[in-house]
Amino acid sequence: MSSTLYVYNSYTGQKEKFEALTPPFVGLYVCGPTVYSDVHLGNCRTFLTFDLLYRYLRFLGYKVRYVRNITDAGHLENDADEGEDKIAKKARLEKLEPMEIVQRYTVGFRNVMRLLNALPPSIEPTATGHIVEQIEMVKQILATGLAYEVNGSVYFDVEKYHEKYKNYGKLSGRIVEELIAGAGNEKRTLEGQDEKRNPADFAIWKKASPNHIMRWVSPWGEGFPGWHLECSVMSTKYLGEEFDIHGGGMDLKFPHHEAEIAQNNACCSKGGARYWMHGNMLTVNGKRMGKSEGNAFLPEQLFAGDHPLLEQPYSPMTVRFFMLQAHYRSTLDFTNAGLQAAEKGYKRLMSALNLLPGLKSGNSSDFDWDAFRADVLAAMDDDLNSPVALAHIFEAVKRINSVHEQKEQISAAHLEMIQQWLPDFVQNVFGLLNEEEQQGNEQARLLDSAMQLIIDLRAEARLRKDFGTSDLIRDRLIGSGIQLKDGKEGTTWEKND
Amino acid sequence: MSSTLYVYNSYTGQKEKFEALTPPFVGLYVCGPTVYSDVHLGNCRTFLTFDLLYRYLRFLGYKVRYVRNITDAGHLENDADEGEDKIAKKARLEKLEPMEIVQRYTVGFRNVMRLLNALPPSIEPTATGHIVEQIEMVKQILATGLAYEVNGSVYFDVEKYHEKYKNYGKLSGRIVEELIAGAGNEKRTLEGQDEKRNPADFAIWKKASPNHIMRWVSPWGEGFPGWHLECSVMSTKYLGEEFDIHGGGMDLKFPHHEAEIAQNNACCSKGGARYWMHGNMLTVNGKRMGKSEGNAFLPEQLFAGDHPLLEQPYSPMTVRFFMLQAHYRSTLDFTNAGLQAAEKGYKRLMSALNLLPGLKSGNSSDFDWDAFRADVLAAMDDDLNSPVALAHIFEAVKRINSVHEQKEQISAAHLEMIQQWLPDFVQNVFGLLNEEEQQGNEQARLLDSAMQLIIDLRAEARLRKDFGTSDLIRDRLIGSGIQLKDGKEGTTWEKND
Repeated sequence: MSSTLYVYNSYTGQKEKFEALTPPFVGLYVCGPTVYSDVHLGNCRTFLTFDLLYRYLRFLGYKVRYVRNITDAGHLENDADEGEDKIAKKARLEKLEPMEIVQRYTVGFRNVMRLLNALPPSIEPTATGHIVEQIEMVKQILATGLAYEVNGSVYFDVEKYHEKYKNYGKLSGRIVEELIAGAGNEKRTLEGQDEKRNPADFAIWKKASPNHIMRWVSPWGEGFPGWHLECSVMSTKYLGEEFDIHGGGMDLKFPHHEAEIAQNNACCSKGGARYWMHGNMLTVNGKRMGKSEGNAFLPEQLFAGDHPLLEQPYSPMTVRFFMLQAHYRSTLDFTNAGLQAAEKGYKRLMSALNLLPGLKSGNSSDFDWDAFRADVLAAMDDDLNSPVALAHIFEAVKRINSVHEQKEQISAAHLEMIQQWLPDFVQNVFGLLNEEEQQGNEQARLLDSAMQLIIDLRAEARLRKDFGTSDLIRDRLIGSGIQLKDGKEGTTWEKND
Repeated sequence: MSSTLYVYNSYTGQKEKFEALTPPFVGLYVCGPTVYSDVHLGNCRTFLTFDLLYRYLRFLGYKVRYVRNITDAGHLENDADEGEDKIAKKARLEKLEPMEIVQRYTVGFRNVMRLLNALPPSIEPTATGHIVEQIEMVKQILATGLAYEVNGSVYFDVEKYHEKYKNYGKLSGRIVEELIAGAGNEKRTLEGQDEKRNPADFAIWKKASPNHIMRWVSPWGEGFPGWHLECSVMSTKYLGEEFDIHGGGMDLKFPHHEAEIAQNNACCSKGGARYWMHGNMLTVNGKRMGKSEGNAFLPEQLFAGDHPLLEQPYSPMTVRFFMLQAHYRSTLDFTNAGLQAAEKGYKRLMSALNLLPGLKSGNSSDFDWDAFRADVLAAMDDDLNSPVALAHIFEAVKRINSVHEQKEQISAAHLEMIQQWLPDFVQNVFGLLNEEEQQGNEQARLLDSAMQLIIDLRAEARLRKDFGTSDLIRDRLIGSGIQLKDGKEGTTWEKND
């Protein structure tokens, strides 16, 4: 399989030709959500970016194993005011159960992903589902001497690691000497800092304090795995010690991905992924989204228009379209104006796709449809440049409308190609479904029958010069949001935007 | 909380008053699907039965922690023809990955449950997510002397257990002496039988053969947990050593639930659940559903009408309604006639609910609406007798139609009560949603506008004695599946069934 896809590799800081390790297979690992609160819109963007990558790789013919984890090992503690004895006396059912919280937010997350038409990954492993494997990796790293145990916790020795591998900080552009000296480590006062040999060290296994709820037995006593560890363990287990692509949000570069690379090298002498890809952040009206800024609406609020900052609801497909309009490595600013434009664009695209099956071919084409297709693919091959691909598609939309209005021609061969290729690309790579078709096919059929009857009644009224009735029909329909259009081939109807 | 609910306890063989252990909390554990193939329609019935129980307990005011596990620790093996070396040389991505299969069928299962409007459980734990805890329970049972290790596997000692607890076989009605003698154990030739002290013993930890894919390190070498163990471990972890209700399909009574009770007692000196509830099986045209019988259609095929035995598609709500028509402890026979009757019944119920908000109250009631509500609840309190509850509701449907047609009266107080209570019960306890409302509200609004216009045009045609046009309108609508109804308060329209 000869690839023409180039991706920006955050690890080397360069756009590189993508070469699969064992084609046609591709291993793709993406850091998934932490399910202790609602999924953040910024996370949604990251997951839609890698959904696009997953879809495009499949479109190119790769067999992709796409692993996206769920971080469900939380750090909930029992109420500190209650003594241990008091807690122990409570019935099991009266106690806070972290997995109940996990379930609630996992269900919510899956629902948002489904609405946004993100494909489920091939494997969706959980941190709690890999405790045995995580304990094994801690043992392996300890055996290499690149970690040390203190009082039931195990820490990764960054200085010793860097001496050997010389790459700690490479991905995130940090200076390891500064990290080791303690700069940039804002959490120095956190519990466990006094146990570390060096402020840059991080826990790969933590001893559980008495009130820590989620805990497992280990060779070092009861505890829980360090957060960075799960991704090294699960990517290795499902994709191998070396695999193709690792993705995530840009905020995960440090310390999370830096630690992952170090763990992978320490454990297996291989760094894990060959290509690191990072999605950029999301802003709202130019500001960072955050609870304290009061601009952090949830995906559900976006779909329902249920937030003071939102002038109207925006459908999941409008949101998906909106995100495709920006390159994944650029920041994306949520504004009502931008979303409203996306809604119009999305509807325009769907209307053009609806016209496609009914187009009539002519002797030749007034537009180079082969070049158009090549341009779309070239944009995608250029590090998933979806906004450029979309711009080409909108040129095609204009041309489809022209052909429909018989202002220009398309050859039979081009028409056949584009009738097959364009809906396939829009639906399967861009993941844009026709929302109206999704809802109420039966209603749509009845509405269409009713509208045909109305159109015929209006034509008949006109024939008998009963313009009062024909005007009444037009006005009543406009009042309901329906526009009649009289054309050469009769009258058609459409909903107003 | 004083309960009036009675449930049939399979363990005692009696209908018993349900008393929660620590009201208002209720712990409910249900054996979930094995996700190595598509979910079976019989399993769907079981899950809908316990969805009804979960919903009704919540309706009664209990705070329910509902745990339904996912059995994802499969027994897949590598191709036996390939030597171990050969397999080891394969790249990770080229190998069969059980978790990929797990993900596929888990996603499918969740989708079917969502379509059938089954609420997600509070916790959905996986077997692979509780390996550490399962190893711990094996250790505990070994420590009591009620299990023994042979060659890397650990077996539960049924004879020794029964000597002490005298209850092995009680749930399923088996004679333990016969089990110990080897009767009823059809799998005697299976691997590991020679390691057992007794044919009735079962594995709680199995040594993994070299080609067994899913394996974890343990104190007894690499292996995997016995299937029965996970439910003892997860119910204990999330609900406590003693909890309220354990549910499952009737086919799980032996050996699965029998083994669970034994494991719980051996480990914790408590038997786990206080009430055991079992759902009955499903037949198709009177025959057991099975692949070899050629009558095993999937839920998706049922919804799409895509199987030789199905005369038409049946919507998820029709299927749910159909299942409610049988008591959960009776067998349920799938037939086209039965499903078609359920479809009609479901639509009739939804139509009546749609009439409710528009009903006008009179001076008094011709029907005892308070007694009706009490009857529905009494039926549900009687071991979830949904068919009897449904029969009462259909009496109410008849009365609602009578009130609508002004053939009988309802008092203002009754109307207010029933407008609130009945839709709440139907939607939240029976879990029946209005499918038409779910789809295309926008389309429905436009269709209604268009139909109002048509009705007005027809009235106007009649006024000017243009019966050609008014007949044409009626005939065209009939052709599209729409019926006009002229009544005292004007013309209405409805879709044909």
